[in-house]
This record gives sequence, structure tokens and C-alpha cells, in this order.
Amino acid sequence: MKIAFQGAHGAYGEMACRNVFGQLAETLPCPTFEDVFDTVGRSPGILGIIPVENSLTGSITQNYDLLADFRGTIAGETYLRIRHLLLAPAGTSLRNVRIVRSHPQALAQCSRFFNRHKTIEAVPHFDTAGAAQSLSIEQRNDVAAIAGRLAALRYGLKVLKADIADRPDNITRFLIITRRKYVMKTAGRKKSTITFVPMHNEPGTLHGLLEPFARHNINIPRLEARPHWTGPFEYRFHLDLDGSPEEPHVALALKQVRSRVRAFRLLGTYGKARIPR
Amino acid sequence: MKIAFQGAHGAYGEMACRNVFGQLAETLPCPTFEDVFDTVGRSPGILGIIPVENSLTGSITQNYDLLADFRGTIAGETYLRIRHLLLAPAGTSLRNVRIVRSHPQALAQCSRFFNRHKTIEAVPHFDTAGAAQSLSIEQRNDVAAIAGRLAALRYGLKVLKADIADRPDNITRFLIITRRKYVMKTAGRKKSTITFVPMHNEPGTLHGLLEPFARHNINIPRLEARPHWTGPFEYRFHLDLDGSPEEPHVALALKQVRSRVRAFRLLGTYGKARIPR
Repeated sequence: MKIAFQGAHGAYGEMACRNVFGQLAETLPCPTFEDVFDTVGRSPGILGIIPVENSLTGSITQNYDLLADFRGTIAGETYLRIRHLLLAPAGTSLRNVRIVRSHPQALAQCSRFFNRHKTIEAVPHFDTAGAAQSLSIEQRNDVAAIAGRLAALRYGLKVLKADIADRPDNITRFLIITRRKYVMKTAGRKKSTITFVPMHNEPGTLHGLLEPFARHNINIPRLEARPHWTGPFEYRFHLDLDGSPEEPHVALALKQVRSRVRAFRLLGTYGKARIPR
Repeated sequence: MKIAFQGAHGAYGEMACRNVFGQLAETLPCPTFEDVFDTVGRSPGILGIIPVENSLTGSITQNYDLLADFRGTIAGETYLRIRHLLLAPAGTSLRNVRIVRSHPQALAQCSRFFNRHKTIEAVPHFDTAGAAQSLSIEQRNDVAAIAGRLAALRYGLKVLKADIADRPDNITRFLIITRRKYVMKTAGRKKSTITFVPMHNEPGTLHGLLEPFARHNINIPRLEARPHWTGPFEYRFHLDLDGSPEEPHVALALKQVRSRVRAFRLLGTYGKARIPR
């Protein structure tokens, strides 16, 4: 089993991957999200893991767009609590730090730390684990990085300060993608993801498309509208629903929705993961 | 009349502002979107203009979140067709260019240009007009910038190549915000924006909230769900609807929705703008 993720080794994506597949699974770092999709699309033996939503910042919209064009399926979901750590090589103390590198979003999520330490400059890096990796190569004692626990382990860095993010309720939802019909064993409840484009854009359209789910008592945890190529401010919808088409009432609702839209696709049915509390 | 916008003089936000208020309106450049909201929130005499959605990349989610906390109202909307130009000082020819600076999103929207010119490096800058401004100061002949027509005029740069974006259907929707109840005169149709948090998250909730709009034949051009502070993966909705609460059927629908949600606010009613074709 090999799983492709975006970022350098030690990235949050790899941590999510370890949560699902354990410490022994082989992981494949990819520079961009496109590379993850391309790799999975070309290789029946490789799974991918991609973030789709963060509890503080919302949808990772690029991955919704890549999913719409992806010819494979969603095989699973998992949630990872994001704990940003301030990391540095062994010789560094917080007093000496002048530069902190990380992904711009991680830097923004630690704004209180930078407000309290006015002499420290936040410097953007292409990803969090990559910033940690750069420290292990350079051996300076005035530079630190913001990344996760796996990056600290991977690059032999010590934790100068744990949990430096402004808010603790920082959770990212990841999807596991596959080219072939790979089924992950799950005992519990199921979730499905569909995508479609409404036939028209007129009063009542969206209400009518949600009607079959309401009638069959199917919960919709997420509805996301993304730009569709048919024209400016026209949309493709991505909809997550609780349940599986193997349940008759879900199959019926999906059949009814399908007859009212175009470009309908079931992107996958998979085990519903628990949101960490 | 003074209007705050994000970016340096010549930014697309300032172009949108000129489209609405003309060439004589006084404009106020602000480093960040927060600064635009802060300035407008402090100053009854200053309006703000903020982008909320791009036809290719989708919602500018940060501005939805700032709107939810904003104590003023939306006074208008406008659409701007984004035409990216390759700009350089008078002495530069395309042959000599080695570096092109712009906002990362503008660079990404011109990927075909960079694929065709492999010797040119794309270098990120904090904003498009700021990249153009930097050229006017440096006077190098191997650097160009990607920005709009107003930036070319403002910084005395020539157009090395017009319309270098991959796609021509690049349109941004801007909202005009105000602290006091500022009414922009419009003869035509009206649009309103509301925000609310559902009472529950259970089957049929969203369907039930859209029901009053469907029943009263009210079109919903846009529905956006943003993370809400009550908990991970709980949402605040932003909903645009065609019409004004001065129309009885709209007032009735809004009253019905209001009774089914919490944290309801009417963010504004304003003249509906035309999407450029």
C-alpha cells in the first residue's frame, strides 16, 4: 500500500495518512495537489490523501475542482486535529529566534504568537514540513519553523513551543482517493459525495434539488458551490450526504436528484469518520 | 466621496471603484482587506469596495467572514472584467524580460504564458498593482509585471503584451460597503444579502430554510457556507437573493426565514448589477 500526499515528509497530510493506514504504510510526497491527483490517476496501486476542508478557514476549493475532473473515486475520509508547533534545531533557544518560516496559512493561524514576539519575522514557505526540513539542512540558530509533530520527528527538531496556534479547534478533513474501486473496510455508518450541475438557474432550483434528501430524511453535512465552465457565476455543486446507495431510500433520493440535474456523478461512498472533540 | 480599496493605486479594486464612482472620486489604498473594513467602520464619510467572488476561482472567503462581523451595510455591487496585461518600463522589450512579478493568483491565471516562455521566472508579489509600482521605482529592463490597465497608466508603464491570461471569462464581483445607511441611487432591479446560522443541523434543515424563497418565487444567485465559531464544521450561511424587503413577498420570505434561524442579519439591499458578457 502506497499513499501520495502533498508536501514534504512530515506534512499534516502524511500525519492524516498515518492515522488511517498506520506507521508502516509507504508514503509518497508530491509537490502540488495536482501531482497527487495525477499520480493516483496514473497508478492503480497508489492511493492519495487530500485536504478538502479546514474547520477555521473553510473549503480547500482547489481540491474540490480537481475532484470534479478526477476519473477515480473517494474511498474514505479522516479528520486530523492540527497542532502547530514551533520547531528548531537542538542548539536554538526561543530567545535567539529572529525568523519563523511556515506556510502562509499556518503563520496566519499563529498571529498572537507574532504579536507577542515583535522581534520575530514571519517568513512564508511553500509548506509547513518543507520549512522544518529547511532548518535541518541549514543549521542556523536564529531560525525556527511552524509545523506538526511528525515533521519534528522526521527532521530531528526540538519543540521550542507547543500549540502556538491562536485557536485549538483547528481540524482538517481529508479524503482518500483511488483510481480503481478500492474499498476500505468500515463497520459503521456510511457517507457519500455527489457532484452535479443544475439544469437551470431560476427560483426554487436549489430547493427542488434538496427536496429528495429532505423527503427521505437524509442529512447533508456539506454543500459547496464551485465555478463551472459553462459561464461566469454558474456553478457545479458538491454535496456530502449521510448514507450509501446500498440503502434503498438513499438510492431513491439519488435517482430523483439525478433526473433533475446534468453532469451528475457519485464520487464515492465511504465510512463516515468521527470529528475529533 | 472617498472610497477605500485593497492594494496599491491602480489595483483592480480601484478600477472597479472608478467604474462605479467615476474618475473624480477620491480613492484610499489599504494594505489589507481588514484595513478596508476597519477604515469604513471608523469613518462614516468613507465607503469601501471589496471583491467577494471571482468567476474562475470562486469566493474570496476572507471577505465573507469580514462581512459577517461588519457593523455596516452593503450599499452596492459591481462586476469588473479582469484583463491581465504584461507591463514594463519604456526601455524594456519582451525579449529581455527574465522576471515577471505579480500576485500569485494572477501568475497562476497566466500559466500558458509562462509555459511558452520558459526562460521567464514568475515571482510572487503582494499585489498586482504593487508589482507594477515596484517597476516604476527600480528602472530595470529585465523585469515586468502583470497588472491591469489602470496600473499601466498610473506608473507610466507600457503594455508588452495585452490579455495574457489563459481564459478571457475572468470577472470579479465587488461589493460596496458603508458604515452609515448610504443609499446608492439605482433605477433597476434590487438584490439583497442576508446571513444566518441554522438552529439545528439535521435532515431537511437547509431545504426548509430555502422553502420560503421557493414558495415566493425568489431567485437565489448565491449561497455560501462559511465556518462558524460555534464548533468545527458548523456553518454560517451567506445568501444573495433577487429583490428588496420593500417588496411584500420578499419581506414575507425574510420574516419566515428569520423565524427559523439564529444570528439573522440583512447585510444590505442594493441595485443589481449586470454581469459583463
